[in-house]
Amino acid sequence: MTFYNTETALSQISETRWSGKVSSAWNIGENPNGGYLVAIALQAIRQLSPQHPDPLTVTVHYLRPGVPDAPCEVEAKSLRIGRTLSTARATLSQEGKSRIEVLAGFGDLFPSSEDLPSIIVPAPDMPAPDECTMRSPEQQGVALPLLDRLDIRIHPDEANAGGAGKAQVSGWIKFVDDEVPDSLATVLFSDAFPPSVFGLLGVVGWVPTLELTVHVRRRPAPGWILGQFKTQDLADGRMIEDGSLWDTNGDLVVQSRQIALVLPR
Amino acid sequence: MTFYNTETALSQISETRWSGKVSSAWNIGENPNGGYLVAIALQAIRQLSPQHPDPLTVTVHYLRPGVPDAPCEVEAKSLRIGRTLSTARATLSQEGKSRIEVLAGFGDLFPSSEDLPSIIVPAPDMPAPDECTMRSPEQQGVALPLLDRLDIRIHPDEANAGGAGKAQVSGWIKFVDDEVPDSLATVLFSDAFPPSVFGLLGVVGWVPTLELTVHVRRRPAPGWILGQFKTQDLADGRMIEDGSLWDTNGDLVVQSRQIALVLPR
Repeated sequence: MTFYNTETALSQISETRWSGKVSSAWNIGENPNGGYLVAIALQAIRQLSPQHPDPLTVTVHYLRPGVPDAPCEVEAKSLRIGRTLSTARATLSQEGKSRIEVLAGFGDLFPSSEDLPSIIVPAPDMPAPDECTMRSPEQQGVALPLLDRLDIRIHPDEANAGGAGKAQVSGWIKFVDDEVPDSLATVLFSDAFPPSVFGLLGVVGWVPTLELTVHVRRRPAPGWILGQFKTQDLADGRMIEDGSLWDTNGDLVVQSRQIALVLPR
Repeated sequence: MTFYNTETALSQISETRWSGKVSSAWNIGENPNGGYLVAIALQAIRQLSPQHPDPLTVTVHYLRPGVPDAPCEVEAKSLRIGRTLSTARATLSQEGKSRIEVLAGFGDLFPSSEDLPSIIVPAPDMPAPDECTMRSPEQQGVALPLLDRLDIRIHPDEANAGGAGKAQVSGWIKFVDDEVPDSLATVLFSDAFPPSVFGLLGVVGWVPTLELTVHVRRRPAPGWILGQFKTQDLADGRMIEDGSLWDTNGDLVVQSRQIALVLPR
């Protein structure tokens, strides 16, 4: 068993309800990482339609911070099961209060054999993981227990608070135990890098995400995942951050976008 | 009364249920435009928290096509009402079947007086509306009753199927009756241009949207709205289209992203 599998596992307690536990090992500061909470909720949704194992589109609204080292309950409801797409919603609750709300469409990302038109998003150039800088608590000003679960390397030009001169963070990510990520794990990976505004604004602390939408574009090949995140739109304390992940073949696996608050310090 | 107000109006029938009617005047081909259906559902969500009139983040999953000229029911549930954000979900049903599922966060886009850092998305250059080409049924290969409600002008270089040589569509949009759009109407505007792949692939017909997420960034100034939509990622018959809307002051009012199917013809 790997950390990821063990610590997102759920037990079904009725047709629409599951129970589990939120570990503190994926914390950012005092709070469980948002991507980790989504991964737990998606485990329930995936069980609603086993013929559709891959999350094609996932939206999560963060209602309240999760509670580390505490039980959780996931209530999941299928909205429609189609031939190529199953749609469902889920609520993850702890201590009687809903923490996240998820709306997701699952399908099958096994490549079709049809010869279809394509538009490719090329991977950016990136120094090798060994030439990058480990993500560290000092960069962001909060403790990062998450780094016991995820190995995150940052482009050396973008590793210092305010040093990049632009709102961009790039680098590499993998599970510390070398578990090969499935399509669902890429949703977690898309919310694990430092906030990209930190390269422009300096130490920004906790950047609470209001909503995150992830489109998984293909199943990742084994190995390091390359990530690049940019904030090109910041207005009135709310930022839109766009992210992309590529696998070691250079193929795009995820596009993500979130709206988050940049709090005054 | 304007078309937009009249044709998205709902009557509340219980604490969580509203009834209305889906007009055929917003059709694309045989089906009501997706953005129009969302606007109806959002009218219900907005009534759940009157102190938060503006949709900050809206995600819609299209489960089944809507039924034109038929009654609809909206069931909306508040998930959390906070100081600055109210989160809710809604289901629009017709003939006993759910058609769309919406998850949205509403807030207040009245600009704060704080001096906060910002990153601006500049509006692209665009010929004046009179120098652009009316959106027409011939461009896309489907009838467009929607054009009785929305005046949509396309950049002359991007108005012919396959003519742009890239998956980009830009232009202008307003209500035909010159109703000033509120923040909610910009969600509708973000799903009313031709599919941007049509500039690259030629006549593409019906491009079914699976999911659309819209971030409204500020309330629009009165006047024409400038829109630009691009598909930079098309794989295995599924495209990701990014869109932006600016008001006549050149201020960004919307960022949108959708995943849609490009069907073989």
